Amino acid sequence: MMQACGVIVEYNPFHNGHKYHLEKARSLSKASCMIAVMSGNFLQRGEPAIIDKYHRAKLATEQGCDIVIELPYYYAVQHSELFAMGAIKILKELGVHSLCFGSESGEIDAFHQTIDAIEKNQFIYQESLKNAIKKGNSYPKSHQIALNRIFTSDTSIDIGQPNNMLGLQYIKQIHNLNANIKPLTIKRAQSNYHDETISLPFASATSIRRSLLHTDNHFLQEIQDSMPKMTSKTLEMYKKQYGCFHTWEAYFKLLQYNVLTSNESVLRTIHGVNEGIEHRIIRTAKDATSFQTWMQLLKTKRYTWTSLQRIFTHILTKTTKEEVQQKLLETPPIRILSMTGVGRQYLNDHKKGTNQLFTSNKNPFPDKELDERISSAYYSIIDSNMMIHAKKQAYLPPYMA
Amino acid sequence: MMQACGVIVEYNPFHNGHKYHLEKARSLSKASCMIAVMSGNFLQRGEPAIIDKYHRAKLATEQGCDIVIELPYYYAVQHSELFAMGAIKILKELGVHSLCFGSESGEIDAFHQTIDAIEKNQFIYQESLKNAIKKGNSYPKSHQIALNRIFTSDTSIDIGQPNNMLGLQYIKQIHNLNANIKPLTIKRAQSNYHDETISLPFASATSIRRSLLHTDNHFLQEIQDSMPKMTSKTLEMYKKQYGCFHTWEAYFKLLQYNVLTSNESVLRTIHGVNEGIEHRIIRTAKDATSFQTWMQLLKTKRYTWTSLQRIFTHILTKTTKEEVQQKLLETPPIRILSMTGVGRQYLNDHKKGTNQLFTSNKNPFPDKELDERISSAYYSIIDSNMMIHAKKQAYLPPYMA
Repeated sequence: MMQACGVIVEYNPFHNGHKYHLEKARSLSKASCMIAVMSGNFLQRGEPAIIDKYHRAKLATEQGCDIVIELPYYYAVQHSELFAMGAIKILKELGVHSLCFGSESGEIDAFHQTIDAIEKNQFIYQESLKNAIKKGNSYPKSHQIALNRIFTSDTSIDIGQPNNMLGLQYIKQIHNLNANIKPLTIKRAQSNYHDETISLPFASATSIRRSLLHTDNHFLQEIQDSMPKMTSKTLEMYKKQYGCFHTWEAYFKLLQYNVLTSNESVLRTIHGVNEGIEHRIIRTAKDATSFQTWMQLLKTKRYTWTSLQRIFTHILTKTTKEEVQQKLLETPPIRILSMTGVGRQYLNDHKKGTNQLFTSNKNPFPDKELDERISSAYYSIIDSNMMIHAKKQAYLPPYMA
Repeated sequence: MMQACGVIVEYNPFHNGHKYHLEKARSLSKASCMIAVMSGNFLQRGEPAIIDKYHRAKLATEQGCDIVIELPYYYAVQHSELFAMGAIKILKELGVHSLCFGSESGEIDAFHQTIDAIEKNQFIYQESLKNAIKKGNSYPKSHQIALNRIFTSDTSIDIGQPNNMLGLQYIKQIHNLNANIKPLTIKRAQSNYHDETISLPFASATSIRRSLLHTDNHFLQEIQDSMPKMTSKTLEMYKKQYGCFHTWEAYFKLLQYNVLTSNESVLRTIHGVNEGIEHRIIRTAKDATSFQTWMQLLKTKRYTWTSLQRIFTHILTKTTKEEVQQKLLETPPIRILSMTGVGRQYLNDHKKGTNQLFTSNKNPFPDKELDERISSAYYSIIDSNMMIHAKKQAYLPPYMA
């Protein structure tokens, strides 16, 4: 039987670094089927993806993935622990033998050592973590503080680096879920996550997006050189057809309207809105003149930029605490966004023992209503005629590469 | 002591017909103080006013009113009975001696006869009304049917005419509230309410708005000739400063987003959403490509265009049944939007026995929160910098002409 290797991705958009990662993962794992679990229209860092999930999934199967599964919204737009939990649950269900993630470290042993140390010092770690959060530190910062308590030397990995942190969570979830998945890691070839300059041929997705949004109708050569030709073609076509890329600024007026016409008790029902942040959100909304200025007005030590963006995503999509809690209790549905012939073969071979696979929004897809609502929010910034067109994608069979 | 005459208005925008009405009302009533009760940013027919209430109130005091009081949202955006009730409550509180309304009939005796007949045939009238509504007729149509049951000859006024219907409700409310107010009426000099062509010098507000919205940056001579110079100047200035007039089409995307991300149980809490219309609203939202097409998709025999527009207004402003029911139990606050020296003198003379007057949104104005929310919805279509500027008007003292 074919063996599969999993990757956990966002592809916003798919670039040379992603291609490199896929190729390395395939050779390292010796798998013949590559399965990507990919965030949908909103991403882990609480942002709209610049183009929708259907277009991103199509690119992924054209560029080396054999199956693209959607990581459901209620796992995708979450801090790294839940994000990892959702992805590993899906990969376990699909029977992958390995998981290959990019990391700043690149040393899988360093991850294992860190996990072992945390597990051996569980009590100290958890106490330090709780204390750090109590003192008003953000979630990632508190993890770093707790880790420093149990590591005296620098043998630990730097979980201040976002991909190291995610990798650690993946391995932790593999343990927690008793998944028979071998973790592998590759040192990221592209420039740093937060880099804003483009360094060829591996520019970061952040720098690519920045460059994309600041040029009007043609793409700079340096963007084109840092991604497959098909990505730049798709981006160009998407913007031409739908009239825009999806950025927070494009949603600003909608979001501001939504907050200014909601009372505090409604905001408090929204996932992520805790500890009185609703007062601050409403107060700052009155003076905000752009998404950027709003975020600046809102920021505190406790809330990272990312966690605030996640809150805004849930406000935009009107996702409540109650709904998320309910969904997290259920088995995540496996929704295929795109696949290749190899992918189809793999799924046929592994049908037995796997929960139902969903190929479109048609009944009885359990996340149908949620998916429609999230899509409505996501496509709300495009012309209504094109919105109808874009939403029809949810009812088509998955793209076959 | 000075005597006052009341008028109940929307001034959307103030035109020659309104000026004529004010002058006639002043001479007919022999009052030295003219008090207008005016809808705020949203109107009785369920539409945004093309310019905001502060600009409209200012125009009104420059053109013949001595005091402009805001009719609260929860009375203004209602069918004619509640609209009339709110306005008469306020005029009674302010101690006006007369009320002068424009009507298609122009004969006050015809109104009195109609009221008398209804009161004498209360039972038949109410039964016919209920039956007609049950059969799926709209509210105005049902009133006409009930009236036809008790009038065999044509001595009754035609309440199919919108201003006759409103006049009838004013007089009914004067009776119900035991208000010592003498009703007067003037035959409307302007063209019919629904006329779409401009007939000088009295064009209807509808035809003026239509013409305004279809010209770009200059006003046609025929519009200018049908309104005081100050109105056209104000309109021009408003559009220049805020970038737009307020029309339903400008709110379409916001409204569609709002509906498509709300579930049915949330929509059902909204004032006016009854009898399962929420299903129809959500279903049609998916195919709507403009406000106009949405309304066409939504229309049924039961729901008039006006009643559907009122529902959309409450959805846009997120006004719930519960909130409206609560507010209607309270005494409507008297909020002064603008006045003249004569108006101020009148209010000084009549202070005793009058409830507190409110001059701005500052505490303890009881409708402060509601007013901020409605304003947020109203100004949501203008640039955020100008929105901040526009909202500050709520905290300034009333305009003094």
